[in-house]
Amino acid sequence: MSWGLDNLPYGVFSRQGEAPRVGVRYGDRVLDLAAALHDEVFAAPSLNPFMARGRSAWHDTRRLIRNKLSGDLAVTEPHLVPLEQVRLHMPFEVADYVDFYCSLEHASNVGRIFRPDAEPLKPNWRHLPVGYHGRAGTVVPSGTPVRRPHGQLRAGVYGPTAKLDVEAELGFVVGVPSELGSPAGAFEDHVFGVTLVNDWSARDIQAFEYVPLGPFLGKSFATSISPWVTPLEALPRVPGRTQDPEPIDYLRRKDDWGLDITLEVELNGEVISRPPYRDMYWTPDQMLAHLTVNGASLRTGDLFASGTVSGEAREERGSLIELTWNGTDPVKLRSGETRTFLQDGDAVTIRATAGDVSLGEVYGKVG
Amino acid sequence: MSWGLDNLPYGVFSRQGEAPRVGVRYGDRVLDLAAALHDEVFAAPSLNPFMARGRSAWHDTRRLIRNKLSGDLAVTEPHLVPLEQVRLHMPFEVADYVDFYCSLEHASNVGRIFRPDAEPLKPNWRHLPVGYHGRAGTVVPSGTPVRRPHGQLRAGVYGPTAKLDVEAELGFVVGVPSELGSPAGAFEDHVFGVTLVNDWSARDIQAFEYVPLGPFLGKSFATSISPWVTPLEALPRVPGRTQDPEPIDYLRRKDDWGLDITLEVELNGEVISRPPYRDMYWTPDQMLAHLTVNGASLRTGDLFASGTVSGEAREERGSLIELTWNGTDPVKLRSGETRTFLQDGDAVTIRATAGDVSLGEVYGKVG
Repeated sequence: MSWGLDNLPYGVFSRQGEAPRVGVRYGDRVLDLAAALHDEVFAAPSLNPFMARGRSAWHDTRRLIRNKLSGDLAVTEPHLVPLEQVRLHMPFEVADYVDFYCSLEHASNVGRIFRPDAEPLKPNWRHLPVGYHGRAGTVVPSGTPVRRPHGQLRAGVYGPTAKLDVEAELGFVVGVPSELGSPAGAFEDHVFGVTLVNDWSARDIQAFEYVPLGPFLGKSFATSISPWVTPLEALPRVPGRTQDPEPIDYLRRKDDWGLDITLEVELNGEVISRPPYRDMYWTPDQMLAHLTVNGASLRTGDLFASGTVSGEAREERGSLIELTWNGTDPVKLRSGETRTFLQDGDAVTIRATAGDVSLGEVYGKVG
Repeated sequence: MSWGLDNLPYGVFSRQGEAPRVGVRYGDRVLDLAAALHDEVFAAPSLNPFMARGRSAWHDTRRLIRNKLSGDLAVTEPHLVPLEQVRLHMPFEVADYVDFYCSLEHASNVGRIFRPDAEPLKPNWRHLPVGYHGRAGTVVPSGTPVRRPHGQLRAGVYGPTAKLDVEAELGFVVGVPSELGSPAGAFEDHVFGVTLVNDWSARDIQAFEYVPLGPFLGKSFATSISPWVTPLEALPRVPGRTQDPEPIDYLRRKDDWGLDITLEVELNGEVISRPPYRDMYWTPDQMLAHLTVNGASLRTGDLFASGTVSGEAREERGSLIELTWNGTDPVKLRSGETRTFLQDGDAVTIRATAGDVSLGEVYGKVG
């Protein structure tokens, strides 16, 4: 069965007329945790209170749920709600949202496109995971329609973006806060799980605005996340990609935090790319170490994303700007249509799997 | 009397052993609003619920408070708590934090320092108020000690910043949310008031990290704000500075939102700069229009700051990097000492006044 006992991601659901609360997906049903486990923390409309409990509570709860689901199902059955009877909500309240730039191939592609006559990577890129803060208030749940943003496309020219794009990413969700003034502790003591992120982007707005303070309105209109947060425990870990030069001490890997996850970008029902997370240059533990090395504190609900996942092959690129080389080489769809950037009415789904474990999908339609 | 009836800023205070709640400063005392106005919204530990009520509630409450304070003081007296008996807290919960770059003089100075051989202003600067998102979770109240951040100062070199700096700014606090997908309405329908901001910066960390995605760890370790939020109504408005070229439609000023406020930067008890807010190139209404032109929504508690306030004269520059020209021309203090950037133990206070109206101060000590 897919979505089986090794999967069990957390989300927030509601039945008609009832308040949203925390559930776990099992097959095509949702386990109502407040009812099944008699624990009020799951009656909250977000994962935050549960995520704040920390690593051993996460572990114990997962074991408890597996026991319930593999034990006498007659007891648990009444608390399993068919998916078609529920509505899925934002799984957690986002505190701060940070977006990194961890794919060597993505950073190189974008560098070549935006600065064709210069070295594609900036001098800092191999020395630290470059990142920036995004807008937490416009992180929206899967299914939220995406309105094409207007803005200044070049000096003095206002209009709807002509270069609406997607970015397929993984997002890491912080459960346990850290103290202001000290770097965070071990990755698995703070990070609860993983969500899928579509970091919608308006490339023309971004290209005009981003010097010298970085992306702003080209990104802040919407960032979609998947309804299910997959616990770290469910994800098979592999060694991270070799880094050259060897990173400085605070960024040195202490453990294997490479993740063997394959993403899939689907445009109007057709898969146009399969970005491999496994090949990312900077691993999630390095992102967390960097984010807090200056003493910045973490809060429950902090979300930090990987940046676009792109592999070496063309069909592994996680954004349209790369897939179409800034619109010069359109993607051909089965329907005979072509795409450079998104048109109104286009629908994008990003999915991901790690072997038998599904991370679900994040969906958004332009219009 | 200073802090009189034309001032009346809002903050959050507590007496020993009591829970934090909302008060208004009057002279050297704090009016306990929950007690004086019999309104539970002021029993909250933050201004957010009150700010969410909107413009006419803000106006009516201010009138009510003035009536109480100018009426029979015997009735109000028991609700006036001497300042020395209270502790001041974060006045509001920060939703998203955005920092702009609105001073022509500051942007020009920094451009000259960082890129001496190029045009100091980037091609976008006169066409839109450049801005970026900062870390909301590390916005801290005045008085919070500032730990000198560590980080990568240049490729492969880790250590404490050698260029710890301040930035004197005004921050604008959003009360009324706006809808995702549409630009916000009129400035005064959304923005509740003004706070002082010290945007602490580590210039070496910032200089290495900031291309191409903007400032990140060089800023995210701490941003201090003043305890008192001055309502817009208390601030005298003046025409904004002339802009060339005339801004595009969505940025065109509909009203006078220039603010005649003078800031003061004090280092270890000595005033080293008096930046004039009046001369800022981009006005606060333009910042808000820009922030939401792409459909990004506002939340109660959003904070957007002006960027460093710097005037034309040397003694009007709002950061040490400008005052000392990146450390090449130290500031001479009365004590005979000099400063390029901040040393451990240094204390910085930023104050501001608008005629007789005081915006109070934001204080921080490095240590």
